[in-house]
Amino acid sequence: MSDSVSKLKSQLYDADAIGAALAIMAWDQQTYMPSGSAGARGEHMALLHKMYHELMTSDEHGKALEEAAKTAEGEDAALVRVAKRDYEIATKLPTELVGRKTLLAAKGHEVWVEARKTNNFSLFEPILTEMFDIAREEAELFGYKDHIYDALLDNYEEGATHADAKAMFDELKGPQSRLVKQISELPETDDSFLYGTFSEAKQSELTHRIISDIGFDLNRGRQDTAPHPFCTGWSITDVRLTTRYKDYLMSSVMGSMHEAGHGMYEQGSPLKWDRLPLSGGVSLGIHESQSRFWENVVGRSKGFWSVYLPELKSAFPQIGNVSIDQFYKALNKVKPSLIRVEADELTYNLHVMIRFELESDLLTGAIRVRDLPEAWNAKYSEYLGITPPDDSTGCLQDVHWSGGMIGYFPTYSMGNLLSYQFWAALKKDIPEAEELIGKGQFKEIHGWLKDKIYSKGKEFTPKELVMKVTGKSISAKDYLEGITKKYAELYELEPALR
Amino acid sequence: MSDSVSKLKSQLYDADAIGAALAIMAWDQQTYMPSGSAGARGEHMALLHKMYHELMTSDEHGKALEEAAKTAEGEDAALVRVAKRDYEIATKLPTELVGRKTLLAAKGHEVWVEARKTNNFSLFEPILTEMFDIAREEAELFGYKDHIYDALLDNYEEGATHADAKAMFDELKGPQSRLVKQISELPETDDSFLYGTFSEAKQSELTHRIISDIGFDLNRGRQDTAPHPFCTGWSITDVRLTTRYKDYLMSSVMGSMHEAGHGMYEQGSPLKWDRLPLSGGVSLGIHESQSRFWENVVGRSKGFWSVYLPELKSAFPQIGNVSIDQFYKALNKVKPSLIRVEADELTYNLHVMIRFELESDLLTGAIRVRDLPEAWNAKYSEYLGITPPDDSTGCLQDVHWSGGMIGYFPTYSMGNLLSYQFWAALKKDIPEAEELIGKGQFKEIHGWLKDKIYSKGKEFTPKELVMKVTGKSISAKDYLEGITKKYAELYELEPALR
Repeated sequence: MSDSVSKLKSQLYDADAIGAALAIMAWDQQTYMPSGSAGARGEHMALLHKMYHELMTSDEHGKALEEAAKTAEGEDAALVRVAKRDYEIATKLPTELVGRKTLLAAKGHEVWVEARKTNNFSLFEPILTEMFDIAREEAELFGYKDHIYDALLDNYEEGATHADAKAMFDELKGPQSRLVKQISELPETDDSFLYGTFSEAKQSELTHRIISDIGFDLNRGRQDTAPHPFCTGWSITDVRLTTRYKDYLMSSVMGSMHEAGHGMYEQGSPLKWDRLPLSGGVSLGIHESQSRFWENVVGRSKGFWSVYLPELKSAFPQIGNVSIDQFYKALNKVKPSLIRVEADELTYNLHVMIRFELESDLLTGAIRVRDLPEAWNAKYSEYLGITPPDDSTGCLQDVHWSGGMIGYFPTYSMGNLLSYQFWAALKKDIPEAEELIGKGQFKEIHGWLKDKIYSKGKEFTPKELVMKVTGKSISAKDYLEGITKKYAELYELEPALR
Repeated sequence: MSDSVSKLKSQLYDADAIGAALAIMAWDQQTYMPSGSAGARGEHMALLHKMYHELMTSDEHGKALEEAAKTAEGEDAALVRVAKRDYEIATKLPTELVGRKTLLAAKGHEVWVEARKTNNFSLFEPILTEMFDIAREEAELFGYKDHIYDALLDNYEEGATHADAKAMFDELKGPQSRLVKQISELPETDDSFLYGTFSEAKQSELTHRIISDIGFDLNRGRQDTAPHPFCTGWSITDVRLTTRYKDYLMSSVMGSMHEAGHGMYEQGSPLKWDRLPLSGGVSLGIHESQSRFWENVVGRSKGFWSVYLPELKSAFPQIGNVSIDQFYKALNKVKPSLIRVEADELTYNLHVMIRFELESDLLTGAIRVRDLPEAWNAKYSEYLGITPPDDSTGCLQDVHWSGGMIGYFPTYSMGNLLSYQFWAALKKDIPEAEELIGKGQFKEIHGWLKDKIYSKGKEFTPKELVMKVTGKSISAKDYLEGITKKYAELYELEPALR
C-alpha cells in the first residue's frame, strides 16, 4: 500500500471511530437510554458531530484524497472514489446552511409531531415551506444536469435521477393500480386471527430463531426492542437490529426479517474493509432491496411458512388451527389503506409514488406547500381509491420531510423492484431456490446474495452493481411478473388480468 | 464568566464528549456487545483514547488552563484546580511509557487469566516484575516527598499517603483481627437457605425496587446485567449500574445496593456541572464510602430487612420461613475466607491490608516478586488464620496488579472507615436515622448525603470534604465502634470483647 493511501486510511479510521461513537449513542438513545438523559445525549452527539464534520471536511483530508487518488489502484481506487464522494457532499454545503437546516429540522420535528397530533397542517406549513426552500438551495449547491430533483436523490442513490424514478413509476403505475383495484373489489380476506395480545418473550424467541436461521449472525450482531424497527451498526462485526411488539403478530416477525435483511447486507462486507467507507451497503435502494427480499420474497412466501407455521402455532396457540392456505392468504392480505408504513406489499409502491410526485412538484413549484393537503388527497383517491379523512392520516403522516429528507422516497420502490430483479437472477443460478425455502434451507440463497451483493460493499456504484448482478438496469419487469403471478394465484384472478 | 474560563470549558466539553463515547462503548462491551466484535471495539476505543489524550495534553489546553487560572473564582477556580490536576497527571508521563504500560497491561491481563486458571505463578512472575518496574518509573515521574507509594496512591486518592494508609491499618489491625478471631471460634452460622437457584426475573424486579426505594433515580440511570457488577456513567442524567445473578441470593441484592451507592453519588452532582470534571465522585475512597454505606450500614442492618424480608420471602419462597433474627445473622455471617471479593464485612479490611503491605514491600524492594506467593500465604495465616492451598486462590486472585493498578487497594478500606464515619455524622443531624431505615424511609438519609457529599462533586479535595462533613480527618474510631457494637450483639460476645 502506498504511503498516501495509508495516510488516507488513517484519517478515515479516525473519522470512523467518531462515527461509531455517534452510531452507538444513537442506538442507545432508541433502546436503553433513560428518558431523563435526552439533553446530555444531544449535547454529546452535537459535539461529536462537529468533530466528525471537521475531520471529514478538513483541508488535510482533501489533500490526502488528492494524493491517494494519484496512485491508488483496484480496491484502493474504489475506496478513494467513495471517500471523495463523501468529502464532496460534506464540503459542498456551507456550514451556515448545514446549521440552519439542522436547527429547522429539530424545530420541524417538534412542530410536525404537534401538527400531526392536533391534525393542524397550517402549523406545519411554514416549516415545510422553509424546508423546501432549503432543499432548493442545497440542490443548486450540489448541482445537477436535468432536473433539480436529481441533485437530492443522488445523495441517497448515487447516479439515480428524476427521470429514472419517473420512468419506474410510469412503468409500475398502470399494472399495479389495476391489480390493487381488482383485488379491492373481492371480498376482504380474514386475518383477524393475527391480531391480539401475544407474549413478547415468545415473539422475541421466535424472531431470534428466524433471523438466525436465514443467516443473520448473532455472534456479530443482536436484536433489541425499540419504538421503531431499524438496523444500525459500527462494524461488520457489530450490527444491531431492533424490532417491536404490537397487537398484529406479524409486525415483529416481518419487521425482524426486514431489518435482518439490512443487517446481513452489512455483515457481509469483507472483513478487510471493516471500519472503512468501502464496507456496508452501497445505497438506500440496494439496501432496501435486501430487506424487502427477505421480508417479501422469502418471508411472505408459502414455502417459508410451510416450515414456520407449525412453530408459530405452537408458540401462539390462540391463532387457532389455521391451514397454511388460510395463513398465507392472511399474511398477504391486500387492502388499500391510508398509512404507508402499514401498507401491504402490493399497495406500498403507490404510497411511495404519491410522495415522489408531490415532492417533485413542490420542489419545482408546480404546486405550493399550502396546497399540499388537497393534492395529497386527490392522489390517494386516484391511485388507491380512498381519501384521507384528515391530514394526520394524510400528508402529515411521514417524518421524512420535517427532517429535510427530500428525494428519499423513490429508494423504497427501487428496493421493491430490485428485490424481485435479484430474485430472478438468483433463480437462474439456483433453480431450486423456491424448494430450498420450502425446506427451511437458506444457506445457498444467503451465500449467493453474499457473493454477488453483500461482499461488494461500495466497490461499485449502485447502477454498476445492478448491471453486474442482473445483466440489466433496474426495471419493473421482474417485479411486475412476480407480484402478478403471486397475487393472481392467491386471489384466483381471471387469466386476463394476469 | 470570563472568556478564558469559557474557552477552557469548551475544551473540557469536547474532551468529555469523547470520554462519554469511550464510557458508553466500555459499558456496552460488558453488557450487550456481541462477542464477535471485541476486535473492532478495541480498535475504536484505542483511536478515541488517542484523541482524548491529545485533547487533554495539548499545549492549547495547558495554555487555556494557565489563562483561566488567572481570573477564575469560586466554583470556576475549583474547576481549574481539578482540570489542572488531570492535565498534570496526563502530561507527566511520556507517551512511550504510557504505551509500554498499555501493552504490558493487555498482555498482562491475558497471562494473568492463564496463570490463575492453571495455578502457575511463574507464568505471571515476569509480567508482574515488569509492572512493578513501570510503577516505580511512574512514581519517580509523578514525584513524591516521603514514600514512593505516595505518588501512586495519590492518583486514586488525592493527598493520601503511605503514612496515612499505614496509620489506618495499624489502628484497625489489632481490634479487627481480635474480633474476627473471637467469632471464628464460635459455631458457624447457618446461611445455607440463601444458596440455590433463584429466578433472575424476580431478582431483577426486587433489586430494581430496592435501588429505587433508597434513592437511585431510574429516570436518570438504569441497571443491566454484566459478568462483574460495576457503576459507570457519562452524565449526571445517565448513570448505569450492573448486577449479576449467582447461586447466593444476596449477591445480586447487596451488589445492587453497593453499585446504587456509587450511582447515587454520581447522580447527585449539581446539574450545572454536568459534563465538566467538577461533577462526579471526588476520589475512590469517598466513592467507596458511599457504596459501602448503602451496602453495609443500611443494607446489612436489621431495620432494613425488617422492611424487605417479607418481600424477599414472598419472591423466593424456597428460602423458607426464616425469622428476621436468623436472616440478619445469616446476612452478616463472618467467616475468614480466601477470596477478597467474597469476604464478609468484618474480614474485608484484612484482605485489603495484606495487599497494601505486600505492594508497598514490592515497590520498595523489601520483598521480591518471586517471593510473593510465600509472603502472601504467610500474611493470610497471620491475619486470617487460614492458608491458601494454591496461588489461584492466593496471590493470583485479583485483577488489579496485572493492569498496573498499584496503590489502589487502600481506598477500599478508606471507604469502609468513611462509611461509618459519615454515618456517625449523619446520626448527629438525624438522630432518628436508624428508625427511619426500619420504616423503609430513606429520603432524609439520601437527602443528607446529597447535601453534604454528592452535591459537592469535586469542589473540595477528599481530605477537605471529610473534614467539612465530619469535623475530623479520616479515622478508624467510628468504624471500629460501629462494627464492634454490631458484631458483639450479633454473636453475643462477652462485654470485655466489645
